[in-house]
Amino acid sequence: MTRTMPGSRTGIRDDLVDLDAWWRAANYLAAGQIYLLDNPLLSEKLRPEHIKQRLIGHWGTVPGVTLTYAHLNRAIMRTGQEMLFVLGPGHGAAALTAATWLEGTYSLRHPEVGQNLAGMRELFRQFSFPGGVPSHAAPHLPGSIHEGGELGYSLAHATGAALDNPNLVVACMIGDGEAETGPLSTSWHGSMFLDRITDGTVLPILHLNGYKIANPTLLARMSRAELDAMLTAQGWEPMYVEGDNPAQVHDRYANVMDEALERIREIRDHAEHGLGPRDPCRPMIVLATPKGWTGPLMVDGVRVEGTFRSHQVPLTGVRENPEHLAQLEDWLRSYRPEELFDDEGHPVDRIARLHPEHLRMSANRAAHGHDSVDLRLPCPTDYAIGFASPGTEVAEATRVLGGYLRDALVENPRNLLFFSPDEHTSNRLDAVLEVTGRRWRERRIAGDDRLTPDGRVFEVLSEHLCQGWLEGYLLTGRHGVFSTYEAFAHIVDSMVVQHAKWLHMAAEFPWREPIPSLNYLITSHVWRQDHNGASHQDPGFIDHVLSKRPEVSRVYLPPDANCLLHVFDHCLRSRGRVNVVVAGKQPALQYLDDDAARVHCERGLGVWQWASSDSGRPAEVVLACAGDVPTQETLAAVTLLRELVPDLAVRVVNVVDLARLFPPDRHPHGISDEEYRGVFTDAPVVFAFHGYPWLIHRIAYRRPGHDNMHVHGFTDNGTTTTPFSMCAMNGIDRFSLAAAALAEVPRLADRRDALVGDLTARREAAEAYARRHGIDAPEVADWSFR
Amino acid sequence: MTRTMPGSRTGIRDDLVDLDAWWRAANYLAAGQIYLLDNPLLSEKLRPEHIKQRLIGHWGTVPGVTLTYAHLNRAIMRTGQEMLFVLGPGHGAAALTAATWLEGTYSLRHPEVGQNLAGMRELFRQFSFPGGVPSHAAPHLPGSIHEGGELGYSLAHATGAALDNPNLVVACMIGDGEAETGPLSTSWHGSMFLDRITDGTVLPILHLNGYKIANPTLLARMSRAELDAMLTAQGWEPMYVEGDNPAQVHDRYANVMDEALERIREIRDHAEHGLGPRDPCRPMIVLATPKGWTGPLMVDGVRVEGTFRSHQVPLTGVRENPEHLAQLEDWLRSYRPEELFDDEGHPVDRIARLHPEHLRMSANRAAHGHDSVDLRLPCPTDYAIGFASPGTEVAEATRVLGGYLRDALVENPRNLLFFSPDEHTSNRLDAVLEVTGRRWRERRIAGDDRLTPDGRVFEVLSEHLCQGWLEGYLLTGRHGVFSTYEAFAHIVDSMVVQHAKWLHMAAEFPWREPIPSLNYLITSHVWRQDHNGASHQDPGFIDHVLSKRPEVSRVYLPPDANCLLHVFDHCLRSRGRVNVVVAGKQPALQYLDDDAARVHCERGLGVWQWASSDSGRPAEVVLACAGDVPTQETLAAVTLLRELVPDLAVRVVNVVDLARLFPPDRHPHGISDEEYRGVFTDAPVVFAFHGYPWLIHRIAYRRPGHDNMHVHGFTDNGTTTTPFSMCAMNGIDRFSLAAAALAEVPRLADRRDALVGDLTARREAAEAYARRHGIDAPEVADWSFR
Repeated sequence: MTRTMPGSRTGIRDDLVDLDAWWRAANYLAAGQIYLLDNPLLSEKLRPEHIKQRLIGHWGTVPGVTLTYAHLNRAIMRTGQEMLFVLGPGHGAAALTAATWLEGTYSLRHPEVGQNLAGMRELFRQFSFPGGVPSHAAPHLPGSIHEGGELGYSLAHATGAALDNPNLVVACMIGDGEAETGPLSTSWHGSMFLDRITDGTVLPILHLNGYKIANPTLLARMSRAELDAMLTAQGWEPMYVEGDNPAQVHDRYANVMDEALERIREIRDHAEHGLGPRDPCRPMIVLATPKGWTGPLMVDGVRVEGTFRSHQVPLTGVRENPEHLAQLEDWLRSYRPEELFDDEGHPVDRIARLHPEHLRMSANRAAHGHDSVDLRLPCPTDYAIGFASPGTEVAEATRVLGGYLRDALVENPRNLLFFSPDEHTSNRLDAVLEVTGRRWRERRIAGDDRLTPDGRVFEVLSEHLCQGWLEGYLLTGRHGVFSTYEAFAHIVDSMVVQHAKWLHMAAEFPWREPIPSLNYLITSHVWRQDHNGASHQDPGFIDHVLSKRPEVSRVYLPPDANCLLHVFDHCLRSRGRVNVVVAGKQPALQYLDDDAARVHCERGLGVWQWASSDSGRPAEVVLACAGDVPTQETLAAVTLLRELVPDLAVRVVNVVDLARLFPPDRHPHGISDEEYRGVFTDAPVVFAFHGYPWLIHRIAYRRPGHDNMHVHGFTDNGTTTTPFSMCAMNGIDRFSLAAAALAEVPRLADRRDALVGDLTARREAAEAYARRHGIDAPEVADWSFR
Repeated sequence: MTRTMPGSRTGIRDDLVDLDAWWRAANYLAAGQIYLLDNPLLSEKLRPEHIKQRLIGHWGTVPGVTLTYAHLNRAIMRTGQEMLFVLGPGHGAAALTAATWLEGTYSLRHPEVGQNLAGMRELFRQFSFPGGVPSHAAPHLPGSIHEGGELGYSLAHATGAALDNPNLVVACMIGDGEAETGPLSTSWHGSMFLDRITDGTVLPILHLNGYKIANPTLLARMSRAELDAMLTAQGWEPMYVEGDNPAQVHDRYANVMDEALERIREIRDHAEHGLGPRDPCRPMIVLATPKGWTGPLMVDGVRVEGTFRSHQVPLTGVRENPEHLAQLEDWLRSYRPEELFDDEGHPVDRIARLHPEHLRMSANRAAHGHDSVDLRLPCPTDYAIGFASPGTEVAEATRVLGGYLRDALVENPRNLLFFSPDEHTSNRLDAVLEVTGRRWRERRIAGDDRLTPDGRVFEVLSEHLCQGWLEGYLLTGRHGVFSTYEAFAHIVDSMVVQHAKWLHMAAEFPWREPIPSLNYLITSHVWRQDHNGASHQDPGFIDHVLSKRPEVSRVYLPPDANCLLHVFDHCLRSRGRVNVVVAGKQPALQYLDDDAARVHCERGLGVWQWASSDSGRPAEVVLACAGDVPTQETLAAVTLLRELVPDLAVRVVNVVDLARLFPPDRHPHGISDEEYRGVFTDAPVVFAFHGYPWLIHRIAYRRPGHDNMHVHGFTDNGTTTTPFSMCAMNGIDRFSLAAAALAEVPRLADRRDALVGDLTARREAAEAYARRHGIDAPEVADWSFR
């Protein structure tokens, strides 16, 4: 590799000389963040006490990021194109911090870090410093919607951000390490989904940095022909910027960027003129420059620039090692800071004016949730099911919700999207497809069902893409729903962690508007995956979400269709949350009329007096339930108890909002112990729960009477079988619940064995019927509450 | 699409006529599983009572799977090539069940399902039937190592199975739906990792079925040129089998299969002769045949064959709808069962002999864990650190483990592999690289570090690939370790669920040998990700794993290097488990010498008498801890308590094996309440825990004295800061723990405020130091226990 020393800037095109100065300034500022506590402008010789005691940061990716930011800014100024910047290698935040500080937006958002000497000192000091700012493109960074850190989601986020933002170009920088992840690998398919007229454009910039932490990257070692073929096949037209000579790279990058934007305009213009039956390839940039470019070439006799050794901090032990200190000083001075900043630390004019006036990426309104519009939502009441008495009418909850969502879409044609891994119809949300299609821009043939090039339902067999696209859409202020099979929600466990952290941290910054909530419709749930078998049976996603910050996480278990309507209406109106709504799609009994459902869901939990028999006297046992199937089994258990022990005082409690059970100091939705006791009484509680039983224990272990709470739930017993058998295998069937309740009533001790024997025999008969006929016995399958 | 009716088999090549009959037999048997309760050979006219009341199954993928199986068998018989079959579309298990029944291996493993009329009736009845077998390629299916269900991992499993199996070809059928997932998308890179001499070969068979549940698939609608380019770029040479005319497809498939195996042999031969500096493309097959091929063409006037409508059950309501019943009968009879089975239900000779004698894929020994060899392991004692007294010596636990793992590798050169998402060195396992390299078969350049084409350390920036490859390696009886950053283990949450389910279910079948455990080394953990910030801080993976079956799940938190050695030695010797070992990589204090560590780890938890002050008298407070950093803070709290209240009776308890805390009826490792009380006493417990505090509560809520247990752990407070600050932010720092302990001692009530005030001031001083200097104050950073 030949190399032009960073100090020499020979041959740089006249119109790019200032851009190069900007680049040097940004690199200087990024290196300064990693190293300097003081002496920010090197106005004196660098001494050990100017150096941070603990050196943290990721230098390797920085020069490519700053270079890209510079050339994007140039393009914005030339073309007036609105752009948003997504930084895949989030660890390179020092680069983005430097760029936004040079733009002035950093100081605008963080006045204590002004564009002056004190501000520059603080800029350096705060980076990865206790009480300072994190090392990622976290919410504190203006213009960022993507923290990075966990790799794989940059391109999906960028794609989601571009949806319904026709005037936007989302420049998305992707590290070649990140490009090895599964989610990123499938994200290239996003090109097949963006509409040329109603959506914006994603401009991927694949940074072939060459190395990860310790290994080369796969994409960097494929031949260029192979890389080209792989990207082209997936709908992209790669334009290459390669080299290690700044003058040549600047020249090439400027030309490629101009060409890419020109091509983007062409594609859009042609689309507007209705040309082209099939989407053309979209331009993208492949940037192949040395890792740690312009940093130390060799350290202690070992090559650093251009290798994995520049990944983090290229020069270590600087306070102790005078040679390293001198080398650091040389490195920093090679950017010629005296040309870049005035004595007050302000960027000199020719750098300060290299920023768009109105279109700074770090001030993009969408990135901060500005202009986000609330949904105009229909009234859930208009979709509610009417019935004569609770527990007699059958409906499919998600199908009922579908009607509501359809009309919500009609009211919000450019502000609401649906995502599903090929399960939208399977999850019974068909009604939505009455007013839109599935997004599909590839070939269509006879036999296809409701595919349209601008459909509002995104289906792709990747939970990662569904989640990533939706996140990108939400992070730029719009609304959406992700419907998915319960068991496979775990596929995005790690993504929801990162999103929840983002929401929690973003709430600290008043210049970020709260963004619409991430709404999950978790259906095809554990109790009705009897036909799909064990791999489809796992209710643990709610455990996972409830382990995240209480300010953010919400879990709702509406027992029927009317409750689902009210819960979902609430979720779609909320902001800044992760809402998990678990609801069945199978025909199921309905319990609450519209009014009762509204009140019940607002309270989040409550006594179902119409099903209870403790009026005017203390309950002898409480049957609690959360989730549609557990509610059904609980009410069936109540019927059995009425039959077996007519004078038993039973109270039925239903929980919709699981967080109500938390003590109030653990979750903002938690009710007081007094309120809790008012609902659950001092009687023993038999709790039939949708998920793993220990989730209830971990939420309620500090509650009064917890020692007398017996939770029945999913204990990972399942296979391909019948719905009732799923309940029976896990002990949440009506017979088991009734038996558990009877065991808690001291006055029935004498009769207990006989009663339990009766219940056990009936459970076994029901199970035997299923094993004989392959379906549930009519008395359990067609049971109604009366 | 032109179409030859399945009844007509005109023009089939002579040598494939029997193969076509086998194919018809397998299709017949698969359809029979979906529909028939009785009348298995259609010896009488089909009546409603012969039909299952509940129709479950996935027909769409079946004909392609049976076709492939037939042609693979033909190839095995022709070439004597050993093969293993991985079925990506696991929902298509009816096809695999049919194939293995025809081969006789199904009846061998399940004698109640014999190769006779009664057996065929049972084969049909049991499928997706209560008390029967699941609808997936689950462990009950001989030859299966991959259940499917959750999609995305077939190719990774196949790749793992091929490693160190030089004579094996793993035929891996990939659905075009599955191909859209992230994990599958990056799995194509596997071609870059398989060694041509020491590893076997993966033969991907991409089934372009055209549709998912309701949508077309992306890969099927790309142009063939695009698909070709995408696959070739990633190291594959696609060979196409397309059509809907059986005769032509048979002919083509036979030729392509022959060609593929010939090419595989060529590649291996050339490798053995040392030719070719770079790996050539590996052959793969693209099979484009109609979804639901040979099933009903139209149903109720709507096209079914060749569309998404054939995905599951193409004809529904068969018991009630005479027209559908007649259509089903026509469909089933179109396979001409009378030609395929004798009157006793046994496959006729020309079908029965179409199976390899010794190399039946369904009898592959590796698939059942046969021939799996235990590791020859060094003695942990030889690697143990010696020191004068506990809590004074510093070591990096994972670096110490690295020495042990290096020598384990030397002893087991073809039976042990290491996987890491580019973190092997970052996780301090460098010693392993003294005796092997990182697996790398692409271009190498100056600056690369220890890359070798046959290295035993697999590094790729995809947790999905690391996990998937390791699972494939384990499922075929070999051993391995996955080391990864704690926070990002969540990326494979859903994969570990499916693997744990597999292990649990596989244990039911005595003809499956227990396979080596899935061993996670979870390092770079939450408490020492102070430098990487919030995105890297999440200890929830252990919560997730402990929600899986207790027979399978194990979590270990060794407090120091010697304990880590003994724990890991135990894990590497175990089978059938998911072992999660959480251990730090940073310099940390060491507590137990080799002997004490061995005893402590065997017990799983115990009193640390040398740190306690309750000898001869009842403890006033118990300080419990689990995890290296919590242990350090607990011991520091003990020091503080000694200083502040010298006569306080403190007991220190350390927990290594978290499952010890479960009641014995909840986990096989659970200790009795008596034993529990013997350790924890009746005194209040202040528990410093590595993870989320509620995990301890959910495990121990039924334990005596639980109301007096106060758990401090990670409550999602974190950022880029210092190690001590991470503890302080979450209240598990020494000062907070000491204060919490003091609050539990009634006799100190008077002095409590003063003592707590002192502790709080010291914590704040330490925090202030960090905010000023960017590093921890020496008194917390360099503290030792004496």
